[in-house]
Amino acid sequence: MRNTQKPSGAPIHKYRPFHEQIRVELPDRTWPGERIEVAPRWCAVDLRDGNQALIDPMSPERKRIMFELLVKMGYKEIEVGFPSASQTDFDFVRQLIEEDLIPEDVTIQVLTQARDHLIKRTYESIAGAKQAIVHLYNSTSVLQREVVFRTDQQGIIDIALEGARLCREYEKTIPETTVYYEYSPESYTGTELEFAVDVCNQVIEVFEPTPERKVIINLPATVEMATPNVYADSIEWMSRHLAHRENVILSLHPHNDRGTAIAAAELGYMAGADRIEGCLFGNGERTGNVDLVALGINLLTQGIDPQIDFSDIDHVKRTAEYCNQLPVPERSPWAGDLVFTAFSGSHQDAIKKGFEAMEARAQAAGVSVDEIEWAVPYLPIDPKDLGRSYEAVIRVNSQSGKGGVAYLLKTDHALDLPRKLQIEFSGVVQAKTDAEGGEVSSGQIWSIFSDEYLPAAAADEKWGRFELLSTRTQSDMSGEVALEVTLRDGEERVSATGAGNGPIAAFLKVLGERGFEISLYDYVEHTLGAGGDAHAAAYVELQVGDQRLWGVGIDGDISTASLKAVVSAVNRAIRSRVSESELAGV
Amino acid sequence: MRNTQKPSGAPIHKYRPFHEQIRVELPDRTWPGERIEVAPRWCAVDLRDGNQALIDPMSPERKRIMFELLVKMGYKEIEVGFPSASQTDFDFVRQLIEEDLIPEDVTIQVLTQARDHLIKRTYESIAGAKQAIVHLYNSTSVLQREVVFRTDQQGIIDIALEGARLCREYEKTIPETTVYYEYSPESYTGTELEFAVDVCNQVIEVFEPTPERKVIINLPATVEMATPNVYADSIEWMSRHLAHRENVILSLHPHNDRGTAIAAAELGYMAGADRIEGCLFGNGERTGNVDLVALGINLLTQGIDPQIDFSDIDHVKRTAEYCNQLPVPERSPWAGDLVFTAFSGSHQDAIKKGFEAMEARAQAAGVSVDEIEWAVPYLPIDPKDLGRSYEAVIRVNSQSGKGGVAYLLKTDHALDLPRKLQIEFSGVVQAKTDAEGGEVSSGQIWSIFSDEYLPAAAADEKWGRFELLSTRTQSDMSGEVALEVTLRDGEERVSATGAGNGPIAAFLKVLGERGFEISLYDYVEHTLGAGGDAHAAAYVELQVGDQRLWGVGIDGDISTASLKAVVSAVNRAIRSRVSESELAGV
Repeated sequence: MRNTQKPSGAPIHKYRPFHEQIRVELPDRTWPGERIEVAPRWCAVDLRDGNQALIDPMSPERKRIMFELLVKMGYKEIEVGFPSASQTDFDFVRQLIEEDLIPEDVTIQVLTQARDHLIKRTYESIAGAKQAIVHLYNSTSVLQREVVFRTDQQGIIDIALEGARLCREYEKTIPETTVYYEYSPESYTGTELEFAVDVCNQVIEVFEPTPERKVIINLPATVEMATPNVYADSIEWMSRHLAHRENVILSLHPHNDRGTAIAAAELGYMAGADRIEGCLFGNGERTGNVDLVALGINLLTQGIDPQIDFSDIDHVKRTAEYCNQLPVPERSPWAGDLVFTAFSGSHQDAIKKGFEAMEARAQAAGVSVDEIEWAVPYLPIDPKDLGRSYEAVIRVNSQSGKGGVAYLLKTDHALDLPRKLQIEFSGVVQAKTDAEGGEVSSGQIWSIFSDEYLPAAAADEKWGRFELLSTRTQSDMSGEVALEVTLRDGEERVSATGAGNGPIAAFLKVLGERGFEISLYDYVEHTLGAGGDAHAAAYVELQVGDQRLWGVGIDGDISTASLKAVVSAVNRAIRSRVSESELAGV
Repeated sequence: MRNTQKPSGAPIHKYRPFHEQIRVELPDRTWPGERIEVAPRWCAVDLRDGNQALIDPMSPERKRIMFELLVKMGYKEIEVGFPSASQTDFDFVRQLIEEDLIPEDVTIQVLTQARDHLIKRTYESIAGAKQAIVHLYNSTSVLQREVVFRTDQQGIIDIALEGARLCREYEKTIPETTVYYEYSPESYTGTELEFAVDVCNQVIEVFEPTPERKVIINLPATVEMATPNVYADSIEWMSRHLAHRENVILSLHPHNDRGTAIAAAELGYMAGADRIEGCLFGNGERTGNVDLVALGINLLTQGIDPQIDFSDIDHVKRTAEYCNQLPVPERSPWAGDLVFTAFSGSHQDAIKKGFEAMEARAQAAGVSVDEIEWAVPYLPIDPKDLGRSYEAVIRVNSQSGKGGVAYLLKTDHALDLPRKLQIEFSGVVQAKTDAEGGEVSSGQIWSIFSDEYLPAAAADEKWGRFELLSTRTQSDMSGEVALEVTLRDGEERVSATGAGNGPIAAFLKVLGERGFEISLYDYVEHTLGAGGDAHAAAYVELQVGDQRLWGVGIDGDISTASLKAVVSAVNRAIRSRVSESELAGV
């Protein structure tokens, strides 16, 4: 078979391979023969590196929620801000200290550039803390020296040393606080190794680490520039050449430009690092920092305690999504919505057999399945150990491996059901299929949906007790809407009026007068396409007497659609009461 | 500094480390000293492995669009389906062949399990093709042997060999087609290496590869079970032990359970593989297959031609999103919406200096910037080479590193602006800030937005030529809505009626009678919160005479909101004409 691939025409002349920029050579590397056997020290930088990369940085309330989440999960070193660069960060650090929100065994970390007034301000921010890590950095790469700082290696060393010395000075202003130090040669991956170790070693001398007060040397892949084995080689080289290595905590800070940050962290840790900085779900500048969730749960799958609590991953995910205002992707390792879902029939079958075999094994051993080794094909971890259910797998099984009900409705009918309605309707479908068996096509799903929520298409068929015949709304921009409706109620035709701050509120009053105690719990609507002539769909969740249920309305006018949705829910409530009393009569 | 991390209580007893399950030992590995210098053979499996993992598998139309995208990008080996398992896949393969849609230099690949009737059907599907790869697989792992197949190693070998022999038989039924073979020991990562190579070598003998007709041996990380260096070790071991290695194309198929698939592919390729199977943006079962986009562009950043065209990455992304009906995450390498955005002030500053230095260098050399080496801090690739702009970086600069305008409106005012309106409004903000300078707060953004799109809050101020005073709509469920409006037109109060399939259409008729030639281009609305008493926002894009512009309306009644949005756009159109004629008069 000939390889017929052709040149792409991409401007490859613009890019110099990494090994021509920075020399990393370590033929006697030992890390590829190592194995991870214990969790690293973790440092969560969600409140700093993650936060600065958000479209909308966290509010003080969101910062507080993120901090509490990280503490609850078990992170003991938490970078909480860059107090000298941001008033919000400064205030947040002060709040943590003054309101005594930092547990005894947690150390906050604050970032600062190596500049006098910034360092001074940094120490002001941590005054009163029991302990804190001051994280000093300056950029060291060839490119930044040339383009940003316009200085030589000695100029960069001077910046670092001056910063370190100032830290030692300001340290004396807060004697009640135990200050630990972290130094980062920023843009480390673009820095010559010999120079990087030179800067670090000179900084280490200033910080005078001891076994009780080690210094953290953090080597950031500020930009990920090469395959992760190269980062690992560089870490092993640094680990061999750092002065007072026994008093140094070697820390990694991988970014994910090439998509290999998790690998870089793992291989770098195997290469001799002690500590890893990252963010939940890989938040951070550009492609993000290394994903602490993936790293931690990767350990768990090897029987290694991550020393972090991932037992309710959905809570962690929801909280991170709330704080970051960015979704966790569907395929994000261990946490995405789809990562425990098997769509393939053969995978589903193998999973089923795996579960059965585990049950049998447990029974034979006279123990519970939670006590025996996990071994289910295509599921490298028990979803239950992350607080997730087997639901996804099971749900899809009931539909013979075809896509979810909600997705078929969306694709084929442009209906975007609210999640709670998805769950309600899923039960309706399941009841039908359990009764009738067999596979459910998209057409059948639509027909089940229409039967359940929408008026019968044929004009002469009567759908439920109520039907909307005409509506008239009037608004004089005063904030109150007047509504006139004509309804079919059973065989009767009735007209009624109501008022409210919107048509739904007015309509609920009309129905209230007809003896229905209704309250509105949720209301969602969307157009079924672009253009002013598109139809709209409205979804309402109502409490009708003691029943909580959804209704759906579709119309060219969104106000009318919402009234139809109310009718749909009320009719469904009445129908289910009728069928209950019928059943009671059997 | 003491490490205060504590046990998490996770059930680590349930998980056996990988090295206790499968022995992979290669102390004399050579891959860590290798470097990638040329693109691998690519095989895109979006239409099979990716497609089966979708919530809603692709329709025939979506399949066709994906196939055409892959061909256009330059993929020459494309797995198009599992024709014996799916009628849709079978029909799609037939369509490709019968409608002559496969370019001369592209080879389609079809997947089949090693079972007689499936193999037979597979050959029926490819009859008439000029060439095709038949991809035969059976599962070989310890776990699947035990739990799913309940057979020993010999049983598994028999399945594979019987399958291979049947392939050779059926091959004779389609003599006009050149058939190539690929064999996958599925669940390879859970298979003892000695057994994996034994199966593969026996299968190779049946396929009798030659230099002209090599056989593909594909080693899938069906489940990613260990750090990526272990996969690389196993690939180097296999590469050394495969029979007729010179006639074997060694292929990788990494999945991403641990988040290290890209690394596994790169290290495995360094370890001696020739070919990589994956999907665009890492689509696929659970966490997905390896991301072909990341792999390809990683090469480009090293000055290596990926032999795939990534010059319009946004088109590739949009098409994949359309076909897969799943979003590409914001931080997806090289392609996510945020990967070229710098929010940090110091990053922005360094990027700016990098651009300036490149300009200066180019000028000094008397060439264009496109001819010199790319070197900009924090931007490992020129976004232009992927068809992307510097817009994101620049946009954020204009707001002094604060979050985007659109996001502030969303967070603080629950307004979710359509993308095109975001762009329009961004221009409005920029005009203001360029004129006034300084940082823009969320409050200022809201005030600019209100001034531009919403009626003045104070009742006595007149906002533009038109103002909506009252509306009355009537629907008799016939599909036509009757509208009565009272408007302020300048100082005059007028009443008018119109009819249309919805209130907007009716209102456009009313305005048409007042001399405005208006057509509707886009219409979007949403509620500003849950609950029936929440306000709603409507956005319309209108063509008013020769102007295309947006209007915004907010009201308790969504119909009224949409009419207000029309008024907003029309008033803006009139205002901009006035200011143009004022300018003309200067």
